[in-house]
Order: sequence, then structure tokens, then C-alpha cells
Amino acid sequence: MSEASFDTVGIGNAIVDIIGRCDDAFLDSHDLSKGHMQLIEADEIDKLYNAMGTAIEVSGGSAANTCAGIASFGGDTAFIGKVSDDEFGRIFSHDLGAIGVTYRTERANGGLPTARSLVLVTPDGERTMNTYLGVSPELDHGAIDPAVIQAAKITYLEGYLFDRPEAKAAFHQASKIAAAAGRQVALSLSDAFCVDRHRDEFLDLIRNGVDLLFANEEEICSLYETGSFDDACGRVDNDCRLAVITRGAAGSLILAGDEKIAVDAYPVAKVVDTTGAGDLFAAGFLHGYANDKPLDTCGRLASLAAAEIISHMGARPEATLAALAAGEGIG
Amino acid sequence: MSEASFDTVGIGNAIVDIIGRCDDAFLDSHDLSKGHMQLIEADEIDKLYNAMGTAIEVSGGSAANTCAGIASFGGDTAFIGKVSDDEFGRIFSHDLGAIGVTYRTERANGGLPTARSLVLVTPDGERTMNTYLGVSPELDHGAIDPAVIQAAKITYLEGYLFDRPEAKAAFHQASKIAAAAGRQVALSLSDAFCVDRHRDEFLDLIRNGVDLLFANEEEICSLYETGSFDDACGRVDNDCRLAVITRGAAGSLILAGDEKIAVDAYPVAKVVDTTGAGDLFAAGFLHGYANDKPLDTCGRLASLAAAEIISHMGARPEATLAALAAGEGIG
Repeated sequence: MSEASFDTVGIGNAIVDIIGRCDDAFLDSHDLSKGHMQLIEADEIDKLYNAMGTAIEVSGGSAANTCAGIASFGGDTAFIGKVSDDEFGRIFSHDLGAIGVTYRTERANGGLPTARSLVLVTPDGERTMNTYLGVSPELDHGAIDPAVIQAAKITYLEGYLFDRPEAKAAFHQASKIAAAAGRQVALSLSDAFCVDRHRDEFLDLIRNGVDLLFANEEEICSLYETGSFDDACGRVDNDCRLAVITRGAAGSLILAGDEKIAVDAYPVAKVVDTTGAGDLFAAGFLHGYANDKPLDTCGRLASLAAAEIISHMGARPEATLAALAAGEGIG
Repeated sequence: MSEASFDTVGIGNAIVDIIGRCDDAFLDSHDLSKGHMQLIEADEIDKLYNAMGTAIEVSGGSAANTCAGIASFGGDTAFIGKVSDDEFGRIFSHDLGAIGVTYRTERANGGLPTARSLVLVTPDGERTMNTYLGVSPELDHGAIDPAVIQAAKITYLEGYLFDRPEAKAAFHQASKIAAAAGRQVALSLSDAFCVDRHRDEFLDLIRNGVDLLFANEEEICSLYETGSFDDACGRVDNDCRLAVITRGAAGSLILAGDEKIAVDAYPVAKVVDTTGAGDLFAAGFLHGYANDKPLDTCGRLASLAAAEIISHMGARPEATLAALAAGEGIG
């Protein structure tokens, strides 16, 4: 196996977030499921945008946020995802490049627009996402560059890719290239609703081909259709070599066969917006893991990055995570 | 004079801000004058955008920010300004409407794009703006709606309009309509460089036609080409019925003929980004003034709104200013 030139390559939907505040009544009146990601169509996103309050635009996308986080830790990372050559596509490309992520996926021309997600943040800091995928799933025609996958220690895939056939095909293509190159494959389950839509395929992947799994409590319980967190943990521990399960303020649990490590959440003065909490948690963990840190250190880096991201609006780090980690004496 | 249906109508450049952080060395290496607004062309903005770090996009524009602030205080306000029917134009329109500002200016089609400003925020919170005006100055062809001007107690104009002939013509057109309707005209000097470009015309306006002037210390000193703040204050007091001069953390000074009122700045835990400080100061003052509050109350509302805006990124209020004012017992 040749020397890896990337710690991680992330593959996912390339999205610009349109983030605004609302109250719970707004979610109810628009029939939105709090804390989840719903896919919506072009006409629906226009209607919801017209109804929502003042917003800011921030580059997003689950795996892209993770890559941005890894770059902010100082890691070498690449992202594969599709945007159009429009205003939002240029914003997305700029922001990934500016933070130091290698991003070479060709922009589409003249077809569907760049994906966008209306992110509604309630006063408790919880985010509810309404995503119009636009051109994002079109990951065919050479978007998956084998050379990049082969050059990365870890290929990190978001579960959201399963929601569209072309993106799912890209997912499988990438994970096969990684495995054939002797590299590791990491998967994020993304969203409990997403797990519900693709449970059997996710289970099959986790049992055959995923080296490292990220999920939150709700997702892992949905995966095994159980109400018992302990039950779900026992089963994923059986199915997967290494699983990291987040539980919000209750911290996280690293399940590595015989080893079981509980990691505390970092204290946060005020949870402003949880958008990207899981993505940045994964960033911290992957950064440590790719650099052969002990698992508990990976967990602490993960918690630190998650704490930074929920303390402000948007899912891209405002602080330099490398400096934060150094300040905390981790790494 | 008929009953006014708006407290204030603002007229100004319609801009989306692209806000990112940088250090002082970045400003120096790009020959940017810290704390000021520079106009740049399309090719220059692309170059600077490519060089700058991760950014967020937030609706801006000086007078538009002021209108958004007045609406957040619960005031009735309208805005006149030109965007194109592109992504940034739709963002700008949405955000003004969502906060409650009446905004009916027709969007342009197929010509220049919506204006944008690269706002570079240094670690001290100071902002340096680099604005590509695009379609914004095209305020001809009926953009200035006499009915809206006549229906507003105060017509509020930003000095930045003087930087382009069509916009300057619109400025004069609007102020004449307001005066003829027996309404008041308020002017913000916008920027010391802008004052330097248009000193004689600004002086003429202030002496003949402006009822209420907003300026900061640097702008008022530039206007009278003096290094002495006291000298500048004495002269503007002579030239203008009512002038409000801001001095950052040192508070502000209301000059109303014989009356001279000093207003403290509200304490701010951390100055995150000064973008919009003057705009929101004007919002608070105009809201009080249009509702016949005593001048010192107008000043306190102004300071409160400025304090809110500098405590976060972007020049549009995140908190509801009406609630903040009620919490402070002002109004």
C-alpha cells in the first residue's frame, strides 16, 4: 500500500445551509419533524423559505462539514460532492477551499441548482432541516475519483447518500475502491429517518465493509428497531469492529470489541445551534484516528469539535480547531 | 399633511454581505484601508474572494440594515433599493420582508448582478468592506416611488448613494419629494472616505434640506476638514438642526441647537463584528424620533441597537430589538 496523501476523503451531499430561527409552533404548523432532516422538492422549498424568518447562508453538507472540521484540526482531507456552477455552488467551493479541504469535483452546468437546506433552529438550539438536493446526487460521470479514494487512509461516507440511486451507486463504488486499496471505510448513519428508509442495506454494509461507524442514540436504536440503548450497543458491537455512538449532552460511547470507552461531552455555556454537532464530532474522531491517537483521545477531540460547533450558528467551525485542541492539551 | 403610514423609508444600496475573518496582515497585503468601505469592480471582488477565508452570507446594505432594525423595534418602515432577480437578490428581498420591512422595488432582470460586499473582520472586531455595487445604483425608471416617500414621516438616505450618478439623482429626487410633502429628511454620512469624495455636496445638503444628520467622529471631522472633534461639533451644530454623532465605545452626542446630550454606549461583553454599528444606531434613534420620544430616549434606543449588532457577526439583528428595549425599560 502506498503512502496516503490524505487522512480522510469525505463523500456526501454538497449543500449550502439557509439558517433561521423559529419557534416550535412554526414547525408544527408546517408539519416538520423536529430534529430531523426531511427531503423537499423545489416548489416546497420556495414556499417554506417564503414563510420562514430572516436567515443567514453558510456552507454545509454533513460529510463536507466533517472535512472542514478535519482541515481546521490541521488534517489533510479531500471532499467529493456535486454542486452546480451557480452562486451557491461558488460559495460552497470557496468555503471548502478556504479552510484547506482539497475539492476537485467538477461543477455541473445548466442543470439542477446547487443543493440547499432550510435549517430551522428552535430556541432550545435544536435544528430541523429541510433539504432540496438539486444537483447534489449526480455523482456519476467520474465524480468518484479512484486516485483520491486510494490516496486516503479513510473514506468517510454519509448515510444521506442512500436517498438517491446515483448517490448510492457512488457510495458503493467508493467503498469498494477503498476496500480494494486496503483503506478503511467509515460511515455516518446521518439521521434516524434515513436509517428507517435504508435499514437493511445499512445493516448489510455495517456487517460487511464498514470499519468505523458513527451514529447517535436515536439512529442506532432505529437501526436495530429497539427502544433499548444498551441492546442497540450490544448488537452494533457484534456487527462492527469500531462504533462510536453520541448521546448529546450525555457524551459518547466508543465500542471497540472488548474495549468500551465512555467520553464526556465538553461543557458549552449555551447551545446556540446543534447543526453539525454529529459532523464535527466525526471530524474530531477521524482526525485523531487517522493520526493513530488512542481511542479516548479521538473521543476527546470529537467532543471538543462538537462543543465548538453548537456554540454558534452554522456547521462550519468559527475557531481554529487545532488551536482549541492545543489549548486543551489534547492531541 | 396626511397621516403617515410609515415611520421611516430608507433608501440605499441593496447589498448582501460576505463576511469572513482575517488578520491585519491580510488587510495590509491587499492594500485595504481598515475600517473603511472601498468600492471594487467585478474582477477585483473575485480575486479578493478567492484570497479570503471561509465566509457566511448575510443580507446587508447600510440603509437596509437600518430599516431592518426599525422593523425589529416594531416600527413601520419601507426600503427602496435595487437588486437583480438572482440568488443574492432573492436572499436580500426575503430577509427584508421576513423582518417586516415593506420592500417593493422591482428586481432587475438580465443586467448586472445584485451588489455584494466582502466584509473582512479583524480580531479586534473592526470591519473593512469591499463593495461591488453591481445593479444597486440603478435607481432610475420609477424606483423612487413618490407615494412611499410622501407616506413616511422620515426619509432616510445613506451617503453611499452619492458614489454613483444614478443613485445620487435618486437621492435628490427623494429628498425633494419628502420636503415638498412636509416630511423630514435624515442623512447618514456613511464613511469618511465617502465624505472626502463628496464633501461640498454633503455640506450643501446639510445646510439646505437635511433635518437630521447621523455621522461618526471620523466622518464629521472629515466633513469640516478638522482634527478637532469639538470644532466639528460646533460647526455641524450651526449647520444642522439636529445632528447625532457616534464615538464608538465613548458613546454618542446629540446636538440639537441649545441642547447637547451625551449618551453612553451600552456595555458589550465582546465586540465580535462592528459591521452595522452605525446603521443600527440610526435605527434605534429613528425609531424613537419617529414616535416622538425625548431625544435622550432616542439615544438610548440607538445605543442598545448598536450594542446588539456588534455582539455577533452580521449587520442584521439576531435578537428582537423591541423585546430588548422592553427588557431595559426604554421606550
